[in-house]
Amino acid sequence: MFFLSDNTASACPEVIAAITAAAPATASGYDGDALSAQLDGVFGDLFGAPCTVLPVSTGTAANALALASMVPPYGAIVCHTEAHVHVDECGAPEFFTGGAKLLTVAGADGRLTPDGIDAGTAGHRGDVHQVQISALSLTQATECGTVYSPDALAALADHGRSRGWRLHLDGARFANAVAHLGCDPADITSRIGIDILSFGAIKNGGLSAEALVVFDPLLVPGLRLRRKRAGQLGSKGRFMAAQLLAMAHDGVWLRNARAANAGAARIAAAAADRLLYPVEANEVFVQLRPLEADALRAQGFHFYDWGAAGSGEARFVVSWDTPAQAIDALAKALAVPPSA
Amino acid sequence: MFFLSDNTASACPEVIAAITAAAPATASGYDGDALSAQLDGVFGDLFGAPCTVLPVSTGTAANALALASMVPPYGAIVCHTEAHVHVDECGAPEFFTGGAKLLTVAGADGRLTPDGIDAGTAGHRGDVHQVQISALSLTQATECGTVYSPDALAALADHGRSRGWRLHLDGARFANAVAHLGCDPADITSRIGIDILSFGAIKNGGLSAEALVVFDPLLVPGLRLRRKRAGQLGSKGRFMAAQLLAMAHDGVWLRNARAANAGAARIAAAAADRLLYPVEANEVFVQLRPLEADALRAQGFHFYDWGAAGSGEARFVVSWDTPAQAIDALAKALAVPPSA
Amino acid sequence: MFFLSDNTASACPEVIAAITAAAPATASGYDGDALSAQLDGVFGDLFGAPCTVLPVSTGTAANALALASMVPPYGAIVCHTEAHVHVDECGAPEFFTGGAKLLTVAGADGRLTPDGIDAGTAGHRGDVHQVQISALSLTQATECGTVYSPDALAALADHGRSRGWRLHLDGARFANAVAHLGCDPADITSRIGIDILSFGAIKNGGLSAEALVVFDPLLVPGLRLRRKRAGQLGSKGRFMAAQLLAMAHDGVWLRNARAANAGAARIAAAAADRLLYPVEANEVFVQLRPLEADALRAQGFHFYDWGAAGSGEARFVVSWDTPAQAIDALAKALAVPPSA
Amino acid sequence: MFFLSDNTASACPEVIAAITAAAPATASGYDGDALSAQLDGVFGDLFGAPCTVLPVSTGTAANALALASMVPPYGAIVCHTEAHVHVDECGAPEFFTGGAKLLTVAGADGRLTPDGIDAGTAGHRGDVHQVQISALSLTQATECGTVYSPDALAALADHGRSRGWRLHLDGARFANAVAHLGCDPADITSRIGIDILSFGAIKNGGLSAEALVVFDPLLVPGLRLRRKRAGQLGSKGRFMAAQLLAMAHDGVWLRNARAANAGAARIAAAAADRLLYPVEANEVFVQLRPLEADALRAQGFHFYDWGAAGSGEARFVVSWDTPAQAIDALAKALAVPPSA
Repeated sequence: MFFLSDNTASACPEVIAAITAAAPATASGYDGDALSAQLDGVFGDLFGAPCTVLPVSTGTAANALALASMVPPYGAIVCHTEAHVHVDECGAPEFFTGGAKLLTVAGADGRLTPDGIDAGTAGHRGDVHQVQISALSLTQATECGTVYSPDALAALADHGRSRGWRLHLDGARFANAVAHLGCDPADITSRIGIDILSFGAIKNGGLSAEALVVFDPLLVPGLRLRRKRAGQLGSKGRFMAAQLLAMAHDGVWLRNARAANAGAARIAAAAADRLLYPVEANEVFVQLRPLEADALRAQGFHFYDWGAAGSGEARFVVSWDTPAQAIDALAKALAVPPSA
Repeated sequence: MFFLSDNTASACPEVIAAITAAAPATASGYDGDALSAQLDGVFGDLFGAPCTVLPVSTGTAANALALASMVPPYGAIVCHTEAHVHVDECGAPEFFTGGAKLLTVAGADGRLTPDGIDAGTAGHRGDVHQVQISALSLTQATECGTVYSPDALAALADHGRSRGWRLHLDGARFANAVAHLGCDPADITSRIGIDILSFGAIKNGGLSAEALVVFDPLLVPGLRLRRKRAGQLGSKGRFMAAQLLAMAHDGVWLRNARAANAGAARIAAAAADRLLYPVEANEVFVQLRPLEADALRAQGFHFYDWGAAGSGEARFVVSWDTPAQAIDALAKALAVPPSA
Repeated sequence: MFFLSDNTASACPEVIAAITAAAPATASGYDGDALSAQLDGVFGDLFGAPCTVLPVSTGTAANALALASMVPPYGAIVCHTEAHVHVDECGAPEFFTGGAKLLTVAGADGRLTPDGIDAGTAGHRGDVHQVQISALSLTQATECGTVYSPDALAALADHGRSRGWRLHLDGARFANAVAHLGCDPADITSRIGIDILSFGAIKNGGLSAEALVVFDPLLVPGLRLRRKRAGQLGSKGRFMAAQLLAMAHDGVWLRNARAANAGAARIAAAAADRLLYPVEANEVFVQLRPLEADALRAQGFHFYDWGAAGSGEARFVVSWDTPAQAIDALAKALAVPPSA
Repeated sequence: MFFLSDNTASACPEVIAAITAAAPATASGYDGDALSAQLDGVFGDLFGAPCTVLPVSTGTAANALALASMVPPYGAIVCHTEAHVHVDECGAPEFFTGGAKLLTVAGADGRLTPDGIDAGTAGHRGDVHQVQISALSLTQATECGTVYSPDALAALADHGRSRGWRLHLDGARFANAVAHLGCDPADITSRIGIDILSFGAIKNGGLSAEALVVFDPLLVPGLRLRRKRAGQLGSKGRFMAAQLLAMAHDGVWLRNARAANAGAARIAAAAADRLLYPVEANEVFVQLRPLEADALRAQGFHFYDWGAAGSGEARFVVSWDTPAQAIDALAKALAVPPSA
């Protein structure tokens, strides 16, 4: 009963089928094949705006390449204190950008706010002795499993753009956010001026391809070269394209995300009185009771402790394919009253 | 009739089957799964030596990570003038190493020699005003489709090691070299002191995984971190491991390589009087006659012009799955006498 | 009446005399001259320990080179939230290290503590998804004009070393700290295990040379190459050595620092009830009253506003050569009671 | 009798006087002082064009910063095989650019030609698998002590610009070139479209300041930040400005260069039959006879062996202050017939 992360999930049947279907064909290498040629059009339809789709092999690569295309080495990127790019990518953004800095800003429930950004960067003078803030990196859904409303995200985008910052959206769980909001994907990307979206597919039923969805064509030529230079231009790109097309086709990406979100909601309902954050996507953060973590693990549940050592906080992530019985079992286990 | 590159080939059935088989299972993310756990043992058996196998998504990433783990930013890497790391990776080695230099040395038929290395680096003083030569990068099979004998490669390895250089082997077509030599893989890697092999799988029937095979355990901890930092630690590593295990199992990698080599040999026989290099792997370089390139393309053959513009040189690459009829057709077309 | 920074000060007569004396001579370039050859011995005597002295042209270069020699690109450096390396060097440490991260830790009065470091890094897991903490950078005197006691600094050094971290001491105002403590320079460097000291000279009466004082000989070869590669190996190194030798000779460096400290003390006494931090070196941070900043500037005092905009905080820096009358004037102006 | 390099020379009296004169004054730090404020105007007059002058501490820093401001990390710079940026800067251009490549082109007597550039880059396809040529770095005077005519340099500049490349001029011995040509400095810089000149001062009688002379204002903002980030923004910038102004004033820079050139000419005349390159600046490359190097050294002459080990080639550099008697002695020694 795996609730460690959504990368413990399998790849969904449509993705496997697409890879299998693509296998027999001989095709031009890199991204010169017929499947790769469809990406821009299919995602352009999805996002209601012209875009260029560049597949890469991991979310870390997607984020780091996006940021590197936006900021000079002497630049800085504003992000949340808990942002994956800051905490969990072993310095990939610093590597890919040539040493830019991440300036972190706190915010409740994993969310940034315009006022929070102002307060968090108030001490930054921006003279020649300091790095130059050049981009804002937002995460949707957030690291706390919450989701920005389209209005909240638009306000942040406006805030950043008014300062001359580029806008990056880390969408490792973008599908979960759209599934929660029930909005048009454009409402939280192209229409609010996002320059590049890291479109997460692997955690949502994909196998080995994520996508950079680039809305500003000025950023594309440099990104193509940086992608190659980073060892991220797939040799047989058709197999990356096949996965992404399978996810985009017929709403598979949303179907998968809805399933994960629904599972998280059921777990959240069982622990409603001790949730650390609102559960809006597929992650449930719970304040466990003394000894409860051990008890859960003894019952076969896998999950990560969270927060500071000894805090008793735990994270449970539901995947697109987490079995209903595992979800029910966890909900039941968490619903046991403390006196039990 | 694709002879452009072996990355136009499909993925072989065993690889597709392995991915399909791995799909349903839930497993720990990254490389914490049961398939990833088998890699070191399986490849250790293959190479007759303990090793650590780190899957990555492209050959460029494999090469650049290997070199970055071996040389400081103020270091230099000796390689052949035509080496892929120098010519065709958009500066990936410079990026991953933090700006080390590639010092190129010429050599007939794509091969370096100890004397050639001495001559090519004679002007390099190595004082504080210059980069420090720290590694030798060899390519097997070479960029010219030739193959070093085990003795020749051992002599080069000795030469480098005696100067204190680390040893990297770019094996994008390693399988083709082993298939040609009929040797034990250890004869051209672990036994001669290679520190890291970039083990090519994708061109040889793989889908999206290459492997760093690391023989010096001292290099492993840094490589693990560099791999993550470069966005090359696969989120669902089991699917990379599955491919590599499928290739290593039951000689699939050699079977595929032998098929490609055999096809190249048939084409070479048809153009024996105008080969630019001995054909020892799966690449055939031919001096075409005037108008011959156009004529071949008109017949449906796809291939790259080679060398300087107007030189009339052409490269034909045979893949593991190139149809016999395509090979026969090309052999027949090339065998037509010039007067025809 | 300049209290902006100690880099507004002139170069002291001994330094100018040393440069003038060095000028006529012809000498080997870079650091092959007779003056450069004296540096290790003279500073070795000063610090009671063998060391290698590498002159560089700025404090930023000294700090960034020191850190780059200590941490891998995937490393991290723990430093104070207000550390110059983090706030005021335009990302030089990130540039020189190849993209390592600075992990900042808060601490009262500009000082770190072992407990503070533990608390500030408690959330850092240090697994493969995160940068690896590899060094601790301390500042003496601190950015708040305070000075660590030898015991406090030794405790921090022990704390870092016990975790396997390298130890860097940013001594842009090291002389002011030693002058305040009255200690042996070794007490806060070589004896407590500092690996590299950035020895500040320019703010203390120098002209264009700072010094890396390297106590761990293992770090020297890489540093020499990084120094060259960074454009910091002076072409006529004798003129850098001349400055540093003049400062070290006959206690000039301490004389200058004592003068600056004494001036700061006089100003501090006049504003004793509204100091933001204890005044232990040559910087005085004062909470000004409404309109007071304007009034002081109208009287001809130059200084920086500090802290957040509108906070009313101000910084006054006294230099080795600040005229007594300027100091008296400022002390008098600050001593005026608020009702005046 | 030092003929090793012109960095063995002293600093000229005007430079020392300027430093001494600047010393007593208190001034704003960095480049906020009155002397720094004069630089753009004075050099603008010298070059007959608006320019921005950014002092740095070494020629290596000047070159590497210039190139970093011109090319992306995935870029390449075309330069001569013997260019200082390629051979003698320990990879500084690779470091500062974030890993761009230097593509070297051979050329007689240290000079590039448009045809040579075309031939040398003919094999470079420039597709996404390769670095993108983005700049041309020329050296005036060249590494062989020769000087491009204004027409030759203009032709190279046109050639590069027509391909969309930026133009950098490494002028470590720019003064010697202008002294030789007797031209207006603008003829070989601003008028032919050079974007940035590395203006050498230290070898020509300076002490610790070189200058970036930036003709394209678009490059200035990035350069200011890169300069700071590289630890090259001098803390007391007035002392760098003072040196550069002293050199520019009243033709001191040309007077010094003429003296050095004249000395070289005298030596060249004595070895006219065995010069390796035409002597047009202050360097004399001579084919020595067997045992002659030892004999010269026994007489007290210091110089570098050149070329490959055992080639018998030697380099003699004359400085602005090389004593006439040393020059005469060397000329006399070289003039001795071989039978002697």
